[in-house]
Amino acid sequence: MAIKVYGIPTSTCTAHVLLCLHEKGIEYQLVPVDLASAAHKQQPHLPLNPFGQVPAIEDDDISLLESRAINRYLARKHKSNGTDLLQSNSLTESAMVDTWMEVEAHQFNGPISTIIYQTIVNPIYGLPPNDKIINSEMDKLEKVLDVYEERLSKYKFLAGDNYTMADLNHILFLVYFMRTPKAAAITSRPRVNAWWNDISSRPATIKVSEAMKV
Amino acid sequence: MAIKVYGIPTSTCTAHVLLCLHEKGIEYQLVPVDLASAAHKQQPHLPLNPFGQVPAIEDDDISLLESRAINRYLARKHKSNGTDLLQSNSLTESAMVDTWMEVEAHQFNGPISTIIYQTIVNPIYGLPPNDKIINSEMDKLEKVLDVYEERLSKYKFLAGDNYTMADLNHILFLVYFMRTPKAAAITSRPRVNAWWNDISSRPATIKVSEAMKV
Repeated sequence: MAIKVYGIPTSTCTAHVLLCLHEKGIEYQLVPVDLASAAHKQQPHLPLNPFGQVPAIEDDDISLLESRAINRYLARKHKSNGTDLLQSNSLTESAMVDTWMEVEAHQFNGPISTIIYQTIVNPIYGLPPNDKIINSEMDKLEKVLDVYEERLSKYKFLAGDNYTMADLNHILFLVYFMRTPKAAAITSRPRVNAWWNDISSRPATIKVSEAMKV
Repeated sequence: MAIKVYGIPTSTCTAHVLLCLHEKGIEYQLVPVDLASAAHKQQPHLPLNPFGQVPAIEDDDISLLESRAINRYLARKHKSNGTDLLQSNSLTESAMVDTWMEVEAHQFNGPISTIIYQTIVNPIYGLPPNDKIINSEMDKLEKVLDVYEERLSKYKFLAGDNYTMADLNHILFLVYFMRTPKAAAITSRPRVNAWWNDISSRPATIKVSEAMKV
């Protein structure tokens, strides 16, 4: 039976799981959750995700939440389909994947998600972007991207010379970020820009980002 | 050669790594980084952690940052010392560990770290705690703890019936939280309180938390 993914393709966290499924060539069924009517905060969604969020998945007997955990599970289960996104056969290489996954989660994600919220989500709800917040978060993001520029001068991808989950975890927020007036933070950094051109032109990325129209 | 840990024992993130080292019975050398003089923002620390933070470790030829990634590396390298904190021999059990590690990182950590900052760190710098922020973050934390109470009515630990990295990742922030006036959020929930009494009385937890005096 195909994996069931509960969510919507414009949600970065749902798209994050879809991206891993496409990378691995895994069949799935997307079960829409109507966020507009707050279906994610009610039955029957809450037993799948008690935090009232998307996505959640069901695969055989297992039900999982949190996109980064779901993708680790998918990468482990389908390790031999294509590249091993976790580089699990090597202690040092897997440590590099883990490190840059944590950098994404704890250095990159906070600023970039706030900037996207202010510049793309706020206007949908008729709220003006808050320039003070945007500028403060851009300062943080630029510092993180300076570290990436240095890192990508030594390696083709964040965790080394292979495309891994560390790169994949950055893609969905960057898809939206590149549609904001702040995209020059990426294009002005040669190594970061080359990395983005590479990971955004992967067939799986193109497929999933096409559905991310808000 | 013993692993070198760069940091200070009162930093939750440094203590997080020390806790894993003690759980696994791994010898280490703590190399103090003088945060008061901003040594973490300067040479020679920056090559170890380009984000200017603690901790960082050096082990044989590898240098790592981000405490959650460091601990995954330590747990993988020393898998057979004591319990396997990542439950890596089972696809479904490792998925549960990953899930509750991500829940800690993305649901629990934000509110609890803000509350600790407001109630413990602010007064150190002569700043009053901001009650509005504390109340708003407590609302979020209480909702997360309600999910934990339900989860812990089914399993002894967050990821199942074994103590894992998912539990360990919660400990250091809880050590400080239990010293705040908000500790009743834990003690008033019978299952969460029993879980906390269990994980806080482990010899490794006692050892590391004794050094966390601010």
